[in-house]
This record gives sequence, structure tokens and C-alpha cells, in this order.
Amino acid sequence: MNTHPAPSERTRVRRLPARAHYDSETINGIVDAATVCSVAFQWEGSVHALPTIHWREGEHLYIHGAKGSRMLKALTTGQACVTIALADGLVMARSAMHHSMNYRAVVVYGCFEQLDEPDAKLNSLRALIEGIAPGRWEQLRPITGKELNATTVLRIPLTEASAKIRAGGVKDDEEDLGWPVWAGVIPLQTVRGTPVTEPDSVVRDAPADVVNPAAPVV
Amino acid sequence: MNTHPAPSERTRVRRLPARAHYDSETINGIVDAATVCSVAFQWEGSVHALPTIHWREGEHLYIHGAKGSRMLKALTTGQACVTIALADGLVMARSAMHHSMNYRAVVVYGCFEQLDEPDAKLNSLRALIEGIAPGRWEQLRPITGKELNATTVLRIPLTEASAKIRAGGVKDDEEDLGWPVWAGVIPLQTVRGTPVTEPDSVVRDAPADVVNPAAPVV
Repeated sequence: MNTHPAPSERTRVRRLPARAHYDSETINGIVDAATVCSVAFQWEGSVHALPTIHWREGEHLYIHGAKGSRMLKALTTGQACVTIALADGLVMARSAMHHSMNYRAVVVYGCFEQLDEPDAKLNSLRALIEGIAPGRWEQLRPITGKELNATTVLRIPLTEASAKIRAGGVKDDEEDLGWPVWAGVIPLQTVRGTPVTEPDSVVRDAPADVVNPAAPVV
Repeated sequence: MNTHPAPSERTRVRRLPARAHYDSETINGIVDAATVCSVAFQWEGSVHALPTIHWREGEHLYIHGAKGSRMLKALTTGQACVTIALADGLVMARSAMHHSMNYRAVVVYGCFEQLDEPDAKLNSLRALIEGIAPGRWEQLRPITGKELNATTVLRIPLTEASAKIRAGGVKDDEEDLGWPVWAGVIPLQTVRGTPVTEPDSVVRDAPADVVNPAAPVV
């Protein structure tokens, strides 16, 4: 599985390297399946991290925020580390030691760049909305120049990234296999619930692609 | 809501401070509702972050890992920033600008300490297992001294922490309320799926408290 080499030394997975993947198909799939990442950065010598919504276009991960935030300033002047983690299952072994979790995780290193060109910002925000609900962008009240100007869009290349995946069943020690406790995996899944229509929404029914999109929901 | 002051300057929420909470009841509730956090730290001048499973006992957040990992070394000698984020809903407005997310997030600053005393380590690992499946610890093949010795348990106080929460409905501009697009919230929820019993598990049915625990599952 792990046929691509790590793109850099800091990206190389140290613990359980057999679970590592460095190909963009695997990395992009995990980035797309997640809605929220954590962005770590240094600011005045201290380490900070904040969770934020993200999306992907091509070989970049995008985030956005309000103009002038401390995080956005720090990210365009220094190095960042973005983490994404999806919990896929609880692995219940016969011994405490072999309890584990099925997960898909991505770690990205690099420097963010700010999108300055209004059309580039507009296109990336459209990708964010369309990723959540395909077809929605064209139905919205059109974005204004003032709104676009107040929004900062940043992107980091997905070139210096690694994925780490655990999947499958329980790996107990041979001598514990007969121990009389249930052993197995409890899948975890994030699902979309019944939409709650705003009391003053003139359209009363949520469109089908909002309720059950083709894309993953987490 | 935000009646407790921020415990330190670096903990104070800058963006949308009305969403901030600094009381331990709110913070502990979010820590308990999440399974996975991201731990950011500095190592040789660079910023790193890794996702990991966490749990809570009293006023500490716990993580564990294998002896000698880079992260565990860095965390006991420097400052860390732990982030937790739970995505609760997609907020679909009439304008792109007012699309948002309902979420519960926690950010913790501080230094981790390593648990050295075997009984303290054992008790904390029991709390991890019991948090996932109450009553399970006593049914497992008992943990050995060698296993306990190979596991590192770290904890960080939850004293320097902040929570940030967005809940509720859409906040559109007054003049957009009549726009003919569906507006509302799509709840997101992480659920436990049908347990997958190991082919060689001598106990064939997953216990009820593993399938539907009283505690939240994310």
C-alpha cells in the first residue's frame, strides 16, 4: 500500500509506519471526507492551534476567515501544521493493550498563501458551498464585493502531507483469543439528521441533495 | 452565558467572543463528548500537531502513547495546545456569507506531565476503557506489568482552557429573509453502527452497553 515515499523528513510517519500513505489519492479522499481540521502555528514563540472548516480544490487545502485575525496573519508569515482526523470505529480487543481505533488521519506541513484576486476568492468560496450542497451557490443571494473583501481565503499545498489509516478488525495476542469477552469493532459514522427549516424560510422543504448528498457528510 | 473570565490572555477567545465559555462544566462536557483531539507542540523550532484519542478524569485531559515517541518527549518538556472540535450542524443561509457551522470546540494550553506511578497509570487506562464501554475493564484479560510499562500516559490540566460554541439557527441579513432558497440547519451526528464481531470471538453478541452506551458516542 505504502508505495509512495514520504515527501519530506518532517512528513514521514514515525509510529506504525505501515499505516502511512503518501499518495495524493488517499490524502485527498480523507481531506474531502472531513469538514473540520485543526490548524497549528507559532505566534510570538508560542504554539497555537484552532479548529476551522476546510475544503479542497486540486492540490490545495483551503480555509477562510475574517480579515485581520491573528491566525490568518500567522499562517501567511510562518509554517503551519494542519491535522484532520476521522474516527471510523472502536476496536474492542480482549486485552486493554490491544484496544484501538479505526481512523483516517492527514497531517499537512507548509506555509499558507492568501488569495488576493477577487475571482479566485469567489471561485474558492463557491467550491466550499458546492461541496456541502451541490447546486446551492447559484440559488443564493449573490455575494457582494464588500462581503468578498471582508473574507480572507488561504490555501496550503497538499504536497507535504501524509495520511495514516487503521482499518479492519482486532489484533489480539494469540494466547488471548479464547478469553471470554466480546471482541469486535463498533463502527462510528457521522450522519446528517432531519433538516430544521428556519421559521421564516420561504422555501419550506430542504432540497434532496442537502439531505442526502452524494458526497460523504463528515 | 459567558460569566467566567478567561483564565489567561492566550486563552481568551478573540473572534466572536460572545461564543466563548470558560467554565469547567462547559469545557468538561465537550472534552467528554469527543474521542479524538489534536495535540500541537513545538519541536526543534518547528510546529507539529498530531491527532490522538483522549479522555478526561477530573480537571485533566489524558492521552497515551508508546514509550519514546517524539510527541510524548516534546509534550513533557514544552508547551502544548490541544484542540477539540465537534461539528454539530451545517447552517444554510440565504447568502454565502452567512453560511456557518454549529460546533462545540475546546482549546487547551499548557504543559503535559507524565504519569510515573503504575497504579496511577492503571487507573487512568481503566477510565479510558470504561468511558468507551462501562463495565468492560473487569471483563478483559488483566493488563500485565510489562504492558503497563510500555505505555506512556500523559495529562494536561484543563485550567487554561476555553470553549467556543455556535448553536441555533440561521442569522441572515434582514433584507435577505425573503430570498427564495431553503434556509435551515442540517444536524450532524456521530452514531455507533452495528457491531462487527470478530470471527474468533468466543462471545458472539456485543453487550448492550457497547452498542448503545449511556454516554455520547463521539
